[in-house]
Amino acid sequence: MPNEKEPVVIESSFHVRYAETDAMSVVHHAGYLVYFEEARSHYMRELGSDYANIENAGFRLPVSEVGLRYVGSLRYGDRVKVRAWVEENRSRKIRFAYEVYKEGDESILVTGFTQHIWTDHNGRVTRAPQQWVDMMAS
Amino acid sequence: MPNEKEPVVIESSFHVRYAETDAMSVVHHAGYLVYFEEARSHYMRELGSDYANIENAGFRLPVSEVGLRYVGSLRYGDRVKVRAWVEENRSRKIRFAYEVYKEGDESILVTGFTQHIWTDHNGRVTRAPQQWVDMMAS
Amino acid sequence: MPNEKEPVVIESSFHVRYAETDAMSVVHHAGYLVYFEEARSHYMRELGSDYANIENAGFRLPVSEVGLRYVGSLRYGDRVKVRAWVEENRSRKIRFAYEVYKEGDESILVTGFTQHIWTDHNGRVTRAPQQWVDMMAS
Amino acid sequence: MPNEKEPVVIESSFHVRYAETDAMSVVHHAGYLVYFEEARSHYMRELGSDYANIENAGFRLPVSEVGLRYVGSLRYGDRVKVRAWVEENRSRKIRFAYEVYKEGDESILVTGFTQHIWTDHNGRVTRAPQQWVDMMAS
Repeated sequence: MPNEKEPVVIESSFHVRYAETDAMSVVHHAGYLVYFEEARSHYMRELGSDYANIENAGFRLPVSEVGLRYVGSLRYGDRVKVRAWVEENRSRKIRFAYEVYKEGDESILVTGFTQHIWTDHNGRVTRAPQQWVDMMAS
Repeated sequence: MPNEKEPVVIESSFHVRYAETDAMSVVHHAGYLVYFEEARSHYMRELGSDYANIENAGFRLPVSEVGLRYVGSLRYGDRVKVRAWVEENRSRKIRFAYEVYKEGDESILVTGFTQHIWTDHNGRVTRAPQQWVDMMAS
Repeated sequence: MPNEKEPVVIESSFHVRYAETDAMSVVHHAGYLVYFEEARSHYMRELGSDYANIENAGFRLPVSEVGLRYVGSLRYGDRVKVRAWVEENRSRKIRFAYEVYKEGDESILVTGFTQHIWTDHNGRVTRAPQQWVDMMAS
Repeated sequence: MPNEKEPVVIESSFHVRYAETDAMSVVHHAGYLVYFEEARSHYMRELGSDYANIENAGFRLPVSEVGLRYVGSLRYGDRVKVRAWVEENRSRKIRFAYEVYKEGDESILVTGFTQHIWTDHNGRVTRAPQQWVDMMAS
């Protein structure tokens, strides 16, 4: 549709840490949720809405749902590349999508999403300040 | 249906570890994948098919897909209770489902599933030995 | 000396989790600090002074120093056994010592200590309530 | 002494990850061993001796001893800075030392060391290839 914007895709990259591997010699499947989190943090910092600021302002973005598909794997020595974008951006919830690659290789290794709700610091669902909703939409 | 069996539900329980909590004072969302893994390990040990034996026999069960929904949370001091069962059991893949509770409270906090494929020790998809397929079905 | 008491040694045990292993197929060296923490939590629960209660009463026991020596290793499929005792017990600090074994084998795999200071919930060094000092000494 | 060289100090930096914090709102004490590992990996990459290459050549550098002192703490939103250098470099063992800072602040938060032994891929103690001993000494 004419007014459908392409989402802003922001890429972050970092090395696989040895502690993240398991006895199958690859990154343990739970580690990708931490990679997603790092990618999401980077996304927010790039858009100027550091999640640390969001917490300092009394808001939280707890995770309400996640889904991941594992196609390939990463090893120690690889450099991780995560592409992240906002898939849904509403006043009370936000959904990020992710694709994980190995630097220097265009095959997608893992895909997934994380859905979050906006709460106050006591965990009550709330509306996000409009400035952050706008920022995430940029 | 008459020939639909109820799945065998096996419960495991253990304490929340301080290292598993995060700055929101609750268990970090990635930690539940580790709880699922512990519950799955316990499930297999209870049925006599310890995953360590599976690996020693040259097979692997890597995770191909996961999904989790977070409704409530756990804190340090809580005792975790995970109910696990096999949702789908085929010669090349197996799917476990999980429900997480806090001991002494019947509210479901987190639900989820993990899907696995049977591979050899080189990661090639293979058929599971029939004895394990039968065991998981029990 | 006649009035030197033998310390109370409390043993805890649990399974190695797959997520705790690394690409060397053994438990990652940082994982032992989490095992120590679990052993320390168990120690306090056994003596009736659950660390969750300590936090709820407004006190904290942050770690100020640790040391570990690694002699052997643990694998997935092993059951960990940790022996813990209080090595030093003062009003402002406490020191625990640990020995890690594999169940069914008396060889020590890892030894270590963790030193802690008593603080209030704002992180200021404080004196521990006498009841807890007495309890830890028991 | 005239022939005592100043060690090469290599600095690495990265963001605190939310998963690394605990319910005290600071980085969990075990997380610093992972930071040390990341700093050590960076050190080797900078000197051209990537640890992944060492493993591919059939050698391992397991950790035999560690020690850490915690003076301050790090929070989500902080950027970690680790200074690492080789404190002892022999044919059969190597010892790294570390200092952890928060970017933009010169106060040392955590100090520590990790000692490693050179082994073959079966875990037998061995002598390091001379090229790596020389490289680490540079």
